[in-house]
Amino acid sequence: MNDLPRRVSINEEGPREGFQIEPGPIPTADKIALIDALAATGLKHIQVASFVSPKLVPGWADAEQAVAGFTPRPGVDYTALWFNAAGLERALAFEDRLHLTGSISLSASEAFSRKNLNRDRAGQIEAMRKQTAAHLAAGIPVTRIGVMASFGCNFSGVVTPAQVFTAIEDGMGIAAEAGTTITRLSLADTMGWANPAHVERLVGEVRARWPEPEITLHLHDTRGLAVANAHAGLRMGVVSFDATVGGLGGCPFAAHKGAPGNIASEELALLCEELGIETGVDLDALIEAGHLAERIVGHSLPSALLRGGSLRAFRERTAGVAA
Amino acid sequence: MNDLPRRVSINEEGPREGFQIEPGPIPTADKIALIDALAATGLKHIQVASFVSPKLVPGWADAEQAVAGFTPRPGVDYTALWFNAAGLERALAFEDRLHLTGSISLSASEAFSRKNLNRDRAGQIEAMRKQTAAHLAAGIPVTRIGVMASFGCNFSGVVTPAQVFTAIEDGMGIAAEAGTTITRLSLADTMGWANPAHVERLVGEVRARWPEPEITLHLHDTRGLAVANAHAGLRMGVVSFDATVGGLGGCPFAAHKGAPGNIASEELALLCEELGIETGVDLDALIEAGHLAERIVGHSLPSALLRGGSLRAFRERTAGVAA
Repeated sequence: MNDLPRRVSINEEGPREGFQIEPGPIPTADKIALIDALAATGLKHIQVASFVSPKLVPGWADAEQAVAGFTPRPGVDYTALWFNAAGLERALAFEDRLHLTGSISLSASEAFSRKNLNRDRAGQIEAMRKQTAAHLAAGIPVTRIGVMASFGCNFSGVVTPAQVFTAIEDGMGIAAEAGTTITRLSLADTMGWANPAHVERLVGEVRARWPEPEITLHLHDTRGLAVANAHAGLRMGVVSFDATVGGLGGCPFAAHKGAPGNIASEELALLCEELGIETGVDLDALIEAGHLAERIVGHSLPSALLRGGSLRAFRERTAGVAA
Repeated sequence: MNDLPRRVSINEEGPREGFQIEPGPIPTADKIALIDALAATGLKHIQVASFVSPKLVPGWADAEQAVAGFTPRPGVDYTALWFNAAGLERALAFEDRLHLTGSISLSASEAFSRKNLNRDRAGQIEAMRKQTAAHLAAGIPVTRIGVMASFGCNFSGVVTPAQVFTAIEDGMGIAAEAGTTITRLSLADTMGWANPAHVERLVGEVRARWPEPEITLHLHDTRGLAVANAHAGLRMGVVSFDATVGGLGGCPFAAHKGAPGNIASEELALLCEELGIETGVDLDALIEAGHLAERIVGHSLPSALLRGGSLRAFRERTAGVAA
């Protein structure tokens, strides 16, 4: 266990992911309650809202109200997502409450980009060039490249490391042109194609080429391998993971109807805790937040740990009992 | 990946585990249909029934009918479970259809043994001594020691490797006295306490002490770590795993209401397939058997992969598509 990191950061994306995909409507007060509950668990990074068109994503028509309503907790970075100038404008109105950062988001699969964003590779680059300029002009730092479909693609199949390198090179080019330095590379298993050996290989090869930026893994549990993939990342020294409480979020692809979405934050936290890796998170409080999320969305979430419960209670209850 | 095994054996326990815990009643014809569907997937070891008291486990009151009803497939070992002389008697009536083997089942946690079997350590040993003699007298080989609660216990907390060694030593003593040789040690994470580091350590230490017997891992997904734990086992060279299709089985402990039971066979098979390890199983057929199991029990099962689907269809559909 000596090669595992000592401390890991969990970037909670449950509110943004979860309330986007649920059929809703979910009361704004419930969204605020979950955000505040998550902030009380020790999580330091929480993505709370998406500033998207209410026509496209009705679940976030109340983004302003949700962001205005939560109670900021010292030491917690509250973040949000947006995709265009209109969204950026809306986010900028909350500069006092939100930690606003820009990202250069590209897809390692051009087929995915065409299907989901209606852009080819040149179109992706052009869109990100403009967005990066807009962010920097607004005083928002752009230090992150995010690579969607880094492990495989429902529309084009296998995605090779070379395709991921191309996307990162494109992003590095955009950053260099804009005069900003990339400090984080986020590799996303958008459609749940990763396996532990693939995670090891890709993380190793990306790090060999770009040793400076920190790597974030954005894992999906579409096929049940997310925790094993996270463990592979930990063994490679990855210290930053996106996750959603309870596995909130689901999978927007029709072929995966009902499949889990992101790795569940509390399962990732349990894995870390059991391996002796600090997360700064109170696991029992996080499980409670997962139960709150289930009450809010009105159905059970995919996380096994929400049913199984943490080990702490059993350890405390049995302390001193002869085995 | 060079240190991973080339081939792994999945011991399917879905029918026995699943139909035992479901509130039922489940028609015998449905049980037979699932057994036959599983045998058609390429699985070579299927535990099909439990010869237990119909009063204690009404779900298996039709064990005889189910065992008489399936269509034996050449090359497949159909097994069953029993706990006493009456069960053994019933199993012996099907010597032509079942692969009957005896096991020395002990618990690494005496608290678990007391709670579940009403036996202390001496009581466990005595019961297994008698059962081993009965098996051998009936011509049934006893070559396996199974250790329940090898990783932790809801009633006594942490279980140390030393406690597991004691249980194995007890079992080896029983085997030696009876003049039989143990060729398999099964380590069971009965209550879902294992983590990947714990699996590595325990498998390594058990193998260091008993290098000859093959190790089987019986993993539960109570807290979402089962696939990561299986991967740890694979990295330690373990080539035999118990599992249940769809994660059939659930968890009988009140504290884990609704929690998954055993590791899902198809998630284990996917992990192996993606790592280049042969299982002999047609993954898509196994997923179909999982869907059949869901229709039979009338509710969805915990396996994420039953929702997410295999990668094969996507790979075939996208063959030749430019990424």
